[in-house]
Amino acid sequence: MKPIDPKKANDAVREVFEDIKQTRKVKQVNNFWKYLANEPRMLKHTWESLKSIMGPGHLDPLTKELIYVAVSVTNNCDYCMASHTAAARAKGATEEQINELYAVVGLANMTNRLANAYRVPVDEQFKTPG
Amino acid sequence: MKPIDPKKANDAVREVFEDIKQTRKVKQVNNFWKYLANEPRMLKHTWESLKSIMGPGHLDPLTKELIYVAVSVTNNCDYCMASHTAAARAKGATEEQINELYAVVGLANMTNRLANAYRVPVDEQFKTPG
Amino acid sequence: MKPIDPKKANDAVREVFEDIKQTRKVKQVNNFWKYLANEPRMLKHTWESLKSIMGPGHLDPLTKELIYVAVSVTNNCDYCMASHTAAARAKGATEEQINELYAVVGLANMTNRLANAYRVPVDEQFKTPG
Amino acid sequence: MKPIDPKKANDAVREVFEDIKQTRKVKQVNNFWKYLANEPRMLKHTWESLKSIMGPGHLDPLTKELIYVAVSVTNNCDYCMASHTAAARAKGATEEQINELYAVVGLANMTNRLANAYRVPVDEQFKTPG
Amino acid sequence: MKPIDPKKANDAVREVFEDIKQTRKVKQVNNFWKYLANEPRMLKHTWESLKSIMGPGHLDPLTKELIYVAVSVTNNCDYCMASHTAAARAKGATEEQINELYAVVGLANMTNRLANAYRVPVDEQFKTPG
Amino acid sequence: MKPIDPKKANDAVREVFEDIKQTRKVKQVNNFWKYLANEPRMLKHTWESLKSIMGPGHLDPLTKELIYVAVSVTNNCDYCMASHTAAARAKGATEEQINELYAVVGLANMTNRLANAYRVPVDEQFKTPG
Repeated sequence: MKPIDPKKANDAVREVFEDIKQTRKVKQVNNFWKYLANEPRMLKHTWESLKSIMGPGHLDPLTKELIYVAVSVTNNCDYCMASHTAAARAKGATEEQINELYAVVGLANMTNRLANAYRVPVDEQFKTPG
Repeated sequence: MKPIDPKKANDAVREVFEDIKQTRKVKQVNNFWKYLANEPRMLKHTWESLKSIMGPGHLDPLTKELIYVAVSVTNNCDYCMASHTAAARAKGATEEQINELYAVVGLANMTNRLANAYRVPVDEQFKTPG
Repeated sequence: MKPIDPKKANDAVREVFEDIKQTRKVKQVNNFWKYLANEPRMLKHTWESLKSIMGPGHLDPLTKELIYVAVSVTNNCDYCMASHTAAARAKGATEEQINELYAVVGLANMTNRLANAYRVPVDEQFKTPG
Repeated sequence: MKPIDPKKANDAVREVFEDIKQTRKVKQVNNFWKYLANEPRMLKHTWESLKSIMGPGHLDPLTKELIYVAVSVTNNCDYCMASHTAAARAKGATEEQINELYAVVGLANMTNRLANAYRVPVDEQFKTPG
Repeated sequence: MKPIDPKKANDAVREVFEDIKQTRKVKQVNNFWKYLANEPRMLKHTWESLKSIMGPGHLDPLTKELIYVAVSVTNNCDYCMASHTAAARAKGATEEQINELYAVVGLANMTNRLANAYRVPVDEQFKTPG
Repeated sequence: MKPIDPKKANDAVREVFEDIKQTRKVKQVNNFWKYLANEPRMLKHTWESLKSIMGPGHLDPLTKELIYVAVSVTNNCDYCMASHTAAARAKGATEEQINELYAVVGLANMTNRLANAYRVPVDEQFKTPG
């Protein structure tokens, strides 16, 4: 698939592109959106979801970027690691914080498998009522 | 494998168990450690790594628990979801924050695959020098 | 590992290569088979399984290619995405269909993690008898 | 987290629940939505995305359910396997088709790893222009 | 899906069941095969592949069972962990060996993600010619 | 992130680098350690864990390298596949053994999903007491 050139995009796509640029105060949408524009419905749904959930809410924006990087490293998604690590830096993450993030992600992937392997039963105090 | 009964544990295992209890100010180690004690070297390495990385550092402790949960949800590790969600709550996470965390994890798993599918090339501005 | 040159292949490998070419009506086997030929038993088993399951059966051939792409995108296998997307196109998939496939795969990866995170119990009506 | 009781849901949640029931012609929303309602924004985004992408489009509805099952089996999501297999049956999937689906998913997971292991380079004919 | 009762199986299925019992010197086939028999072609392909690859070859049988467990723990497949750990024990694995296996699997899952996160370039000496 | 130049490393990092070189009898540490040195605590923990678990123990060193490769192929970690396949060869793995390893990893990834799909219940004889 080729990316959709913003100049040749249909109205539905252009509207999303404009909203991304305004919301993020950038001059160009990044490649992810240009490719996703091949499926205009999904472009719109994905952008609306991200705009809403990654915007102001209950967790601070930097924390949410770090969570995004953690998932992307676990899944080995190069593009997502690059874009969300850049976003985390833009939101103030220091190199020490990113290195510590990577360490936590590594450890979690390890202990996830150790818990699997031993089939560890959940302790009573960790069970949520309801 | 059976969990190791703290009363019957050898000295190397007991020493780790005592350190876990003192560090975390708990009366009992949780099941994960009792099972991992079947491999005393790994028990020691895992505890020392977690104690160091999950302790005071560059990211606040709650953020690190949320990252842990994000990886565990991605990998579908029941035990780790339960124990680290409990730890996040103990460190002050609100229900709204946990729900938002889950939303971010869901979205990241989606956009990771969309980026894979379209094989989106990394934008110049996201590339790190070096 | 190097790919096995069809001209230098032993009889067991050549026999599989010939069957691939005849079955698929192609002049050359693609790279996957040339590399897998390093393990002639596995070459034979894999080809026989694919020939049988991906051939005429209960689902139409295009649907099976789309399923193959869905798994390959989820696992982030570049080679498999490329080869099975090409096969899907050869069997008639339109660009709109491939874009919609990617959207479904993205959504499934998202809701899989949301269902994990909330540990949603299976509704009675979804349980299969037996 | 507990599921949200439809009777006690706020207006935003109730509106989504009503739309799910009308769209799917069911009397009750299934558990997934009741849990996801803990995060009303994500409930709305997820439902709108699914309603749009899984509804009438370029691929027939049954094919989309099969793709959903394929991803869910690959990720080992019990809830999603159960709910989307039920949906596939409701849309006409036969037992033979479901069995063949499972076979394709198994094979794809195998050949994904064989392609990884041998680091097979993508053949020229599989590369997409652009 | 229900498991196929060996007494009611068709000839193709029964033939595979008999071969499994003879090859493994067991009185009953285990559940995996009874369920897989719902797709007789896949039953046959899977059994033939396993019989050939897991049988006498270049790696000793115990090593192959340990590899099987390593993959199953990484993928969190309960059934496969149980059946192949049992097979490893039957082929002589000690508890110490199984514990060490789990430790290696945990570490590999960790360093896999650290290598992803840092996008470590492959050293020249690790590149294979060809 | 850039790799840490051993000549400019701080004392903590240099100490680990020296231990790696002495333990492995190599003149240079490989790239993985140079990148991981960006997080000196994690460098130390990871090295100490690997040195201990991958060193003399209950499984022979070659078996442990093969297990490492099996996990790395399953997770599609290019760096880890390259480095641990090289290590396996250095410890005596033949090409036939590596090919057979890949075959086992492929099959395990397939049967893991087949067991998921059919939700096969664990046979009594595979359950571990305790």
